Amino acid sequence: MTDEKVELGKMLWYDTRLSLSGGFSCNSCHNLATYGVDNLPTSLGHGWAIGPRNAPTALNAALHATQFWDGRAADVEAQAQGPILNPIEMGTPSAEFATERIASIPTYVELFERAFPGEEQPLTYENIANAIASFERTLTTPARFDDYLAGDLDALDDLEKEGLQVFINTGCAGCHNGAALGGNSLQRFGVTEAYWEATRDFVAIDSPTMPMDVGRFAVTHDEADLYVFKVPSLRNITRTYPYFHDGSVWSLRDATQIMARVQLGRELGEQELDDLMAFYGALEGTIPEYALQLPVLPASTDATPRPDHR
Amino acid sequence: MTDEKVELGKMLWYDTRLSLSGGFSCNSCHNLATYGVDNLPTSLGHGWAIGPRNAPTALNAALHATQFWDGRAADVEAQAQGPILNPIEMGTPSAEFATERIASIPTYVELFERAFPGEEQPLTYENIANAIASFERTLTTPARFDDYLAGDLDALDDLEKEGLQVFINTGCAGCHNGAALGGNSLQRFGVTEAYWEATRDFVAIDSPTMPMDVGRFAVTHDEADLYVFKVPSLRNITRTYPYFHDGSVWSLRDATQIMARVQLGRELGEQELDDLMAFYGALEGTIPEYALQLPVLPASTDATPRPDHR
Repeated sequence: MTDEKVELGKMLWYDTRLSLSGGFSCNSCHNLATYGVDNLPTSLGHGWAIGPRNAPTALNAALHATQFWDGRAADVEAQAQGPILNPIEMGTPSAEFATERIASIPTYVELFERAFPGEEQPLTYENIANAIASFERTLTTPARFDDYLAGDLDALDDLEKEGLQVFINTGCAGCHNGAALGGNSLQRFGVTEAYWEATRDFVAIDSPTMPMDVGRFAVTHDEADLYVFKVPSLRNITRTYPYFHDGSVWSLRDATQIMARVQLGRELGEQELDDLMAFYGALEGTIPEYALQLPVLPASTDATPRPDHR
Repeated sequence: MTDEKVELGKMLWYDTRLSLSGGFSCNSCHNLATYGVDNLPTSLGHGWAIGPRNAPTALNAALHATQFWDGRAADVEAQAQGPILNPIEMGTPSAEFATERIASIPTYVELFERAFPGEEQPLTYENIANAIASFERTLTTPARFDDYLAGDLDALDDLEKEGLQVFINTGCAGCHNGAALGGNSLQRFGVTEAYWEATRDFVAIDSPTMPMDVGRFAVTHDEADLYVFKVPSLRNITRTYPYFHDGSVWSLRDATQIMARVQLGRELGEQELDDLMAFYGALEGTIPEYALQLPVLPASTDATPRPDHR
């Protein structure tokens, strides 16, 4: 990670030319103005396609042990290669096409040379993703909870501290732990009952995968992975609604009660929910200012493959 | 125009909740990272609809005498009310729906009270547009040409000065004049021959209105307004490709030659074109930094009408 790589990654992050139609950038679904999400159950993509899973926040994503809801990518570098070529996301027909678009713009050619010095071919599809991932690695959001962990006991008020106690005592921290309070394991969603039974009543908009998504099973075809999903991070959870892999539940209070019920087999009381809601507030962090500064992007040239919405 | 109104307008500018689907903000089609345009022939809208006319840049738009390609809105305040409710743009079903969305968010309620002090009902659809328009009024882009006009004769190099001479002598300045080098009159596109005959060979992507758009005639039904369009501003013209009301022509050199041919009945020489291209470079201005700083948007509430892509 160098400044050159991060700055280049930021430009690519906001550049709609990585989508075939010219209508989407990384920021379309992982909007940094709204804590790295689009606040939709599942995202809109090429041709008005509706994605099967909720777009997770890009904030703190680099802290996760694996990427995507089913953990099918090892890191943000591998993940960033996915959406550009996904026909129902950015819809770019091939890695070559994406690379050709970017390589047709002289400023980008120069910036890749600076960001990947000494490489024989600095402008590759892998390096497009690597630069974007370097930018993502800067998207951490320090919060009051970090101050508390660092020893500032006044960083949380009494209700928030109660919430932290409930969070630990109830067993939430069994999975939502580590630097991101989640993101470091895959777990079966619905241990004590089927998740879709619990969430069904909350679904506001039909999701194409409702009532059920088999999770990691679709990747491994191992029955042990049936309904297994990555545990999401709880950082900025107050802002990354709607919740779960299918974006089925809009209320954080409802989502919390559902988790207690289907993962831990218990019902939380109103006071416990109040406490947890307060604790979540302490996880709301600060988005780096420079990441929010839109870069002015270099112009296309006659050689730039044109946008195509078909 | 107050700071409060402009800041509020900036938040609304970047807020996708003004679209029914939650997929579009003002910035989707008038992207400030790419000089206030989407660099598409015509924009993508709700339901993957393809708009009939090219999205004009929001930069310096407030300097224009009228708004929209057919001049059907008097100013940016009136213009800003349009796209939100246009079923093939942002697709919000009614002014009431848009207002309800914004009014469901306490931070916005407070910001409208501060931006429109003393008004009985500060949060109205008109004031949503008024705030956005106030933000747009700040989107001016001072360029080297302004330094030249202000007396700094070294602000343009020799080729650029030649270009300015060609620009005046050829007659371009007859319509492209005033503070925005355009935007202050409506003119028939195709004086000496039909515009669609001249542009047809350049069309890269089918536009739903090709080969012809009747222009202002569709508003007034007056034959004198047949094929009449607003003269676009030439500020940042190097960056606001593709050109014309239908985005039919990608090359600025081609567009310039077409204009000389169909408006002035003449063919420009290669040297004249070189000079004009150089002059256009001096019209490329600086986008205000603060406008490019993405605001962190306030969270929705349980009362916020949900996004709907149908």
